[in-house]
Amino acid sequence: MSNETIFSSFPTVAFEGPSSENELAYRWYDAERVVLGKPLKEHLRFAVAYWHSLAMSGSDPFGGPTIFRPWMEPGDPIAQAKVKADAAFELFRVLDLPFYCFHDADIAPPADTLAETLKNFHTLVDYLEEKQGQYKTKLLWGTANLFSHPRFMAGASTNPDPEVFAWCAATVKNCMDATKRLGGSNYVLWGGREGYETLLNTNLKQELDQMGRFLSLVVDYKHKIGFNGQILIEPKPKEPTSHQYDFDVATVYGFLKTYGLENEVRVNIEANHATLAGHSFEHEIASAGAFGILGSLDINRGDALLGWDTDQFPNDLWTMTMSMYHVIKAGGLGKGGCNFDAKVRRQSFTPEDMIYAHVGGADLCARAFLTAAKLIEDRKYDKILTDRYQGWQSGTAADMFQGKLSLEQIEQHALQNNLNPKPRSGRQEQIENLLARAIYTDKL
Amino acid sequence: MSNETIFSSFPTVAFEGPSSENELAYRWYDAERVVLGKPLKEHLRFAVAYWHSLAMSGSDPFGGPTIFRPWMEPGDPIAQAKVKADAAFELFRVLDLPFYCFHDADIAPPADTLAETLKNFHTLVDYLEEKQGQYKTKLLWGTANLFSHPRFMAGASTNPDPEVFAWCAATVKNCMDATKRLGGSNYVLWGGREGYETLLNTNLKQELDQMGRFLSLVVDYKHKIGFNGQILIEPKPKEPTSHQYDFDVATVYGFLKTYGLENEVRVNIEANHATLAGHSFEHEIASAGAFGILGSLDINRGDALLGWDTDQFPNDLWTMTMSMYHVIKAGGLGKGGCNFDAKVRRQSFTPEDMIYAHVGGADLCARAFLTAAKLIEDRKYDKILTDRYQGWQSGTAADMFQGKLSLEQIEQHALQNNLNPKPRSGRQEQIENLLARAIYTDKL
Amino acid sequence: MSNETIFSSFPTVAFEGPSSENELAYRWYDAERVVLGKPLKEHLRFAVAYWHSLAMSGSDPFGGPTIFRPWMEPGDPIAQAKVKADAAFELFRVLDLPFYCFHDADIAPPADTLAETLKNFHTLVDYLEEKQGQYKTKLLWGTANLFSHPRFMAGASTNPDPEVFAWCAATVKNCMDATKRLGGSNYVLWGGREGYETLLNTNLKQELDQMGRFLSLVVDYKHKIGFNGQILIEPKPKEPTSHQYDFDVATVYGFLKTYGLENEVRVNIEANHATLAGHSFEHEIASAGAFGILGSLDINRGDALLGWDTDQFPNDLWTMTMSMYHVIKAGGLGKGGCNFDAKVRRQSFTPEDMIYAHVGGADLCARAFLTAAKLIEDRKYDKILTDRYQGWQSGTAADMFQGKLSLEQIEQHALQNNLNPKPRSGRQEQIENLLARAIYTDKL
Amino acid sequence: MSNETIFSSFPTVAFEGPSSENELAYRWYDAERVVLGKPLKEHLRFAVAYWHSLAMSGSDPFGGPTIFRPWMEPGDPIAQAKVKADAAFELFRVLDLPFYCFHDADIAPPADTLAETLKNFHTLVDYLEEKQGQYKTKLLWGTANLFSHPRFMAGASTNPDPEVFAWCAATVKNCMDATKRLGGSNYVLWGGREGYETLLNTNLKQELDQMGRFLSLVVDYKHKIGFNGQILIEPKPKEPTSHQYDFDVATVYGFLKTYGLENEVRVNIEANHATLAGHSFEHEIASAGAFGILGSLDINRGDALLGWDTDQFPNDLWTMTMSMYHVIKAGGLGKGGCNFDAKVRRQSFTPEDMIYAHVGGADLCARAFLTAAKLIEDRKYDKILTDRYQGWQSGTAADMFQGKLSLEQIEQHALQNNLNPKPRSGRQEQIENLLARAIYTDKL
Repeated sequence: MSNETIFSSFPTVAFEGPSSENELAYRWYDAERVVLGKPLKEHLRFAVAYWHSLAMSGSDPFGGPTIFRPWMEPGDPIAQAKVKADAAFELFRVLDLPFYCFHDADIAPPADTLAETLKNFHTLVDYLEEKQGQYKTKLLWGTANLFSHPRFMAGASTNPDPEVFAWCAATVKNCMDATKRLGGSNYVLWGGREGYETLLNTNLKQELDQMGRFLSLVVDYKHKIGFNGQILIEPKPKEPTSHQYDFDVATVYGFLKTYGLENEVRVNIEANHATLAGHSFEHEIASAGAFGILGSLDINRGDALLGWDTDQFPNDLWTMTMSMYHVIKAGGLGKGGCNFDAKVRRQSFTPEDMIYAHVGGADLCARAFLTAAKLIEDRKYDKILTDRYQGWQSGTAADMFQGKLSLEQIEQHALQNNLNPKPRSGRQEQIENLLARAIYTDKL
Repeated sequence: MSNETIFSSFPTVAFEGPSSENELAYRWYDAERVVLGKPLKEHLRFAVAYWHSLAMSGSDPFGGPTIFRPWMEPGDPIAQAKVKADAAFELFRVLDLPFYCFHDADIAPPADTLAETLKNFHTLVDYLEEKQGQYKTKLLWGTANLFSHPRFMAGASTNPDPEVFAWCAATVKNCMDATKRLGGSNYVLWGGREGYETLLNTNLKQELDQMGRFLSLVVDYKHKIGFNGQILIEPKPKEPTSHQYDFDVATVYGFLKTYGLENEVRVNIEANHATLAGHSFEHEIASAGAFGILGSLDINRGDALLGWDTDQFPNDLWTMTMSMYHVIKAGGLGKGGCNFDAKVRRQSFTPEDMIYAHVGGADLCARAFLTAAKLIEDRKYDKILTDRYQGWQSGTAADMFQGKLSLEQIEQHALQNNLNPKPRSGRQEQIENLLARAIYTDKL
Repeated sequence: MSNETIFSSFPTVAFEGPSSENELAYRWYDAERVVLGKPLKEHLRFAVAYWHSLAMSGSDPFGGPTIFRPWMEPGDPIAQAKVKADAAFELFRVLDLPFYCFHDADIAPPADTLAETLKNFHTLVDYLEEKQGQYKTKLLWGTANLFSHPRFMAGASTNPDPEVFAWCAATVKNCMDATKRLGGSNYVLWGGREGYETLLNTNLKQELDQMGRFLSLVVDYKHKIGFNGQILIEPKPKEPTSHQYDFDVATVYGFLKTYGLENEVRVNIEANHATLAGHSFEHEIASAGAFGILGSLDINRGDALLGWDTDQFPNDLWTMTMSMYHVIKAGGLGKGGCNFDAKVRRQSFTPEDMIYAHVGGADLCARAFLTAAKLIEDRKYDKILTDRYQGWQSGTAADMFQGKLSLEQIEQHALQNNLNPKPRSGRQEQIENLLARAIYTDKL
Repeated sequence: MSNETIFSSFPTVAFEGPSSENELAYRWYDAERVVLGKPLKEHLRFAVAYWHSLAMSGSDPFGGPTIFRPWMEPGDPIAQAKVKADAAFELFRVLDLPFYCFHDADIAPPADTLAETLKNFHTLVDYLEEKQGQYKTKLLWGTANLFSHPRFMAGASTNPDPEVFAWCAATVKNCMDATKRLGGSNYVLWGGREGYETLLNTNLKQELDQMGRFLSLVVDYKHKIGFNGQILIEPKPKEPTSHQYDFDVATVYGFLKTYGLENEVRVNIEANHATLAGHSFEHEIASAGAFGILGSLDINRGDALLGWDTDQFPNDLWTMTMSMYHVIKAGGLGKGGCNFDAKVRRQSFTPEDMIYAHVGGADLCARAFLTAAKLIEDRKYDKILTDRYQGWQSGTAADMFQGKLSLEQIEQHALQNNLNPKPRSGRQEQIENLLARAIYTDKL
């Protein structure tokens, strides 16, 4: 904690309540506020993303870096990685959020060989362990970056070259070891290159089977080492590849069923990935809830008018509230959490910008959660839904639902009773008004 | 065959070869041409869609009908339905395509009660049976329209009202009976209202379970009556509802696995539905091939710049060729076929337009199939793919693929061999050039 | 006012303030509340759309009507049109909004000839005039439906057939006469078929020139009859046609400049049309403000995940607030207003649903306007923007801006001063936090 | 020509005709083939893009470089820039295409100050001049990169900081000087940062006025130095910024009209930018033709299923044929040409891949042009279009079109003649069949 970093001069952001005029205070994220039986911080389990917050340079496909940090300057790679870690933990301190997440490549420099790359990685894992001892921030999840290096350009576990598969296996093993050692609650796999640039040069079935094999190995290893966190897949439909195999929650669920892993692996759902797949964030959460595989959330937002992953900090209270509502309905995030997989805009290059962004994001999520909890507690909204499906609860309908009647028996029932279903209003506008009243208020 | 219809004056469209100047002749669809061991007509199994060809009026959300046919005029509903059937079979004769497809609502008028509606339906099924005896066109598949009537506005099998589920069960039973009786090769379910307008008023899990129950009933009934055709689900992501449960092939596969129906049900893939889901047609076909559930095709195209189902007749030779290539790689269409689920534009209201459209579509598909077959036969393209994955065929790679090595064993292998995978070109442009030469030629 | 309608039993919706529990009360739309110098009702000038509220049947491309109203039943067309008008004015009374809007085809039935169609139209215009005398609702704008009838399928003024142009000219003349007579504040042209289904059969230049000629005729006629309302074009990029000529505000502005009409015609901007064109609603408003052609607003929202015009009632407070902010910055809506060009969902078929929808929409807009006004008044946000461009206000920068320096002179300036511009943060996240605090509060 | 480069060992690609088996030969691009009165090379004026072909590294937002060239290695920047230029001209020789295009930043390294940056630039311009003397490739256009460096992150001429405007002015002056000196036929402006990341921190009107001022300065300077090439703006709707001011051809035309530059500036239309704006390439070309501002083409293609600029080499023969058809109808490209603004995929890192890509692209364009020319020459297709609008050529219709009749006069005409326009088929499917026969043939 001795080294001065770009974040060291900032005081720790505190909860000051909705009426605070302080731009660097929380207005809604009152970590200790008890709601639905436990403190907000245990529901939300916020995490800071090492990559966006420490490693992001602001470059885009048409422009170079705009964000320059001391640890990006030339120097001994290991030493600079430690400077970065020092700054990381100071940022965590300032934000006072309970978790962080990282890829291997975020925390340690690559080397020429696999062995040396792993050595660098473990050197920094040691250092992170040390930092964790000094600060109160914990690890939400670890993961491996199997997409940035050119060796992954044709896929990681789905690469036509089995040597790349082997490289990935070795890397993930070490990342899982590190995650366990650092007390991580989850291990995440995002297949940034698990897909194809063009179907023209791709054997789809072969690649899916490779990916299935890889995931099975990961699950086996988890049990072997006694890692008791969750294994999570993060769906994304496209970008960087033209088609990614983990397209969305439903696709991942089918994949898990195919390889018999649906009880072993859950999903880490990202808002921007959801919208790129043509779904709302809340749809993906509700789907994961229905399939029983909700694991964790990557908090951000896309731009509905743009076709790529903008990874912006969230600002849409309605969407976030409904998302949190479905999280609660699915039983909460458990060992998962809310990871800010969001990056400041490339014009927002100051350290202050990084803090504003997280403060705004945490406040939005907290407020959304409080509102969702209130919706649950006052039961008005739930009642509307329950009433709508009430007819299925008893009688012939219940029998039909449970499979006690065949198609012919149902036909007979319909004919004998001269069924003629009457239309009922879907009440969408009325419900939207109800929700608008619940969401756009600061009486929480 | 006695009644004069709007199509009666047209001679049957004949194959005249690529150099024909006749606009109403086939240039590529030589039904009897043998390729890959059987006649083209047995590979493609073209079908005319009753709804688009006979029932479509040209209306759109901003305008009324532009297509007026004699059978749409006021009159006795049953008599008019027969006039329509007469015209249908004359159209089939003119086009000389081997199959047709229908929804219950396309062929028969609705009535006030379920019983009378079914009675009307069977009256017309009798009539179709009679027509089939007089013409050579057969039934590719039957289906039920469970989306147009207001009773389905909140869903068919997924309706919050169990009476609607019962109505649907009765209807599908009768449509299956009719399909069997008419010698249909498949029975299709497209869930036009199986989804939600807004998640705000929806219990997702309940609705998925209802849909799973419904499909199980259908499969049970198929076995009971000894219908030996295929049961097919047709994926679509959105429209008319905001989210449809049968989003795409991967989603349907997950759904089938969930309810244990993956060996009982296959997919009917539509080109325009594929692109609305963010996939290419060939991707969806290749995916179904990989999952072993390719059933049949709905032939049409969307407009990549528009966000709704335009259902146009196809004209993109590249896409259709690659689609046919993946059909062949998946083992062909079997009992399925190529149904022209395509509609003439609303300005194309003349009977001639209907014929031009099918002639162009059939020629495109035929030509695409011939090209795809040639690609298969000359093996150059396949060799590029095989070579790309060659490394997986033997040695440690084969062991890894088959699960004989654990994550640690692979790590040891990687370290001991100091693996350092070398980049290999994906050769996309070279392959595209190769395919351009194969596709954009009329030397077939 | 004697006839009982489906809306007659509803009391007039009153402002009851944010804490009201009444679902049929305004919480934010306090019509008389004075803000920025005049009552809210004069800023917003809300209008009810005759077509969506009275004529909409709930049909969509895959399903028939779900909304059945007494005036849609068989009967004498003129008599039924009057029943519809009676209901319309009762709805206006219930909602207590100051304006309405209509197309000719909404209020009167078509007939076989142009002459009789116009006669029907004027009969109902007489009736509307009578109703206006009995109620306090006024006409915001009139317009002609030149897109629904099959005669317009290939365009209205852009039709390849000049007879259609002539029909349109006659129709618009009569609609302008009626709008003037009924005291309308604006006359609107939305070119639902002014575009093409396919460029393949289209002479683009010819059609643009036809459209330019038509608009010139309209402007000439306005001056001739002394109509002192605004002429407005409503941009839309696509749907129903594949490409519509009035794509967006910038395209319309270029069109107006081409035909010398930029001082005669303004735009009526619709939210859902903006997003279909790839723009935000606020972008289109700000653009119109920059070009000096902001005329009026069509209030609704699209679904960012769907590719067609869903015309939903608005519920996004953020977007609406920023939209109202740009309206105020552009000098307000003047003779324009906020027309609810929004339709209830097809499952929302009850009269109550229609009222809920408008109440929610009006409250959202009112609240958004109040917030925007507060943003203007407290000047914090404006100051951030002014500061950002401060450098342009004086010195060499001002000279450059005004064109007093040539390219070489600027080069010399840059070299002599060894210019090396320093990056400044764009502060996006900080501004978003500021706005979130301003928008997501009910302290207004 | 002495230095060995990665392209030196390749023989010059020759035209060998459609039946050639050589992958590195032209099949359709017979440069000297005379069509429509002049050699193909003079119609198409192909250019190689310096940036994609020499400077592109294969990085994307999720991965680093995959393409490593000798001139990207560490070394003296000027010396390395010359190595790059040597390779560039060898690539031009291999491809045997007549033109190239560059940005200042592609050819020369940046330096710390403006003065030194310009000095580097002119050093390399000298070198390019020397290379041009040794090879036969000429300059199609020059341009300035005002988007990659962080100083442009908030805009170039639209930057809130006037110093950035001045920097840009100085840079463009020098690029125009260089373009003139190297005999360039055009000078292009693509405003990669002329737009906004968020409207929240943007003064739209101020920025548009800055951009108008800048373009006026450029035009003035063109006249002053006697540059007789064309000034071209390249439209793009989004990416890298969220909204770019030069959205599409219609928007640029409105912009030019606003600042009185419509006779001074034309457009350089890129296929992928067209589709990102929701238009087809041929639509943008036809629009520019209609406005009289067609300047030049950037040849590439996007992926209709992806939302970003993929800049792939073209392979769609239909689209390219219709694009070339509209080029011919607009009078041809004049001083413009067809610049391959396309990049090989990041897995296509070998020098061969670069050559395959251009060979395929040139062949596609050449074939498309030959087909389009044939369509023009055989007049069948043109006749369909002419006939469709025939009614406008005489009588009352011609008078209406020319503005000789007022709205009332047209109304009188319509009523007196009891006009009742009859529907005519739009014949879309028939035309598509005609075009399919013309396009998908290799009998050219």
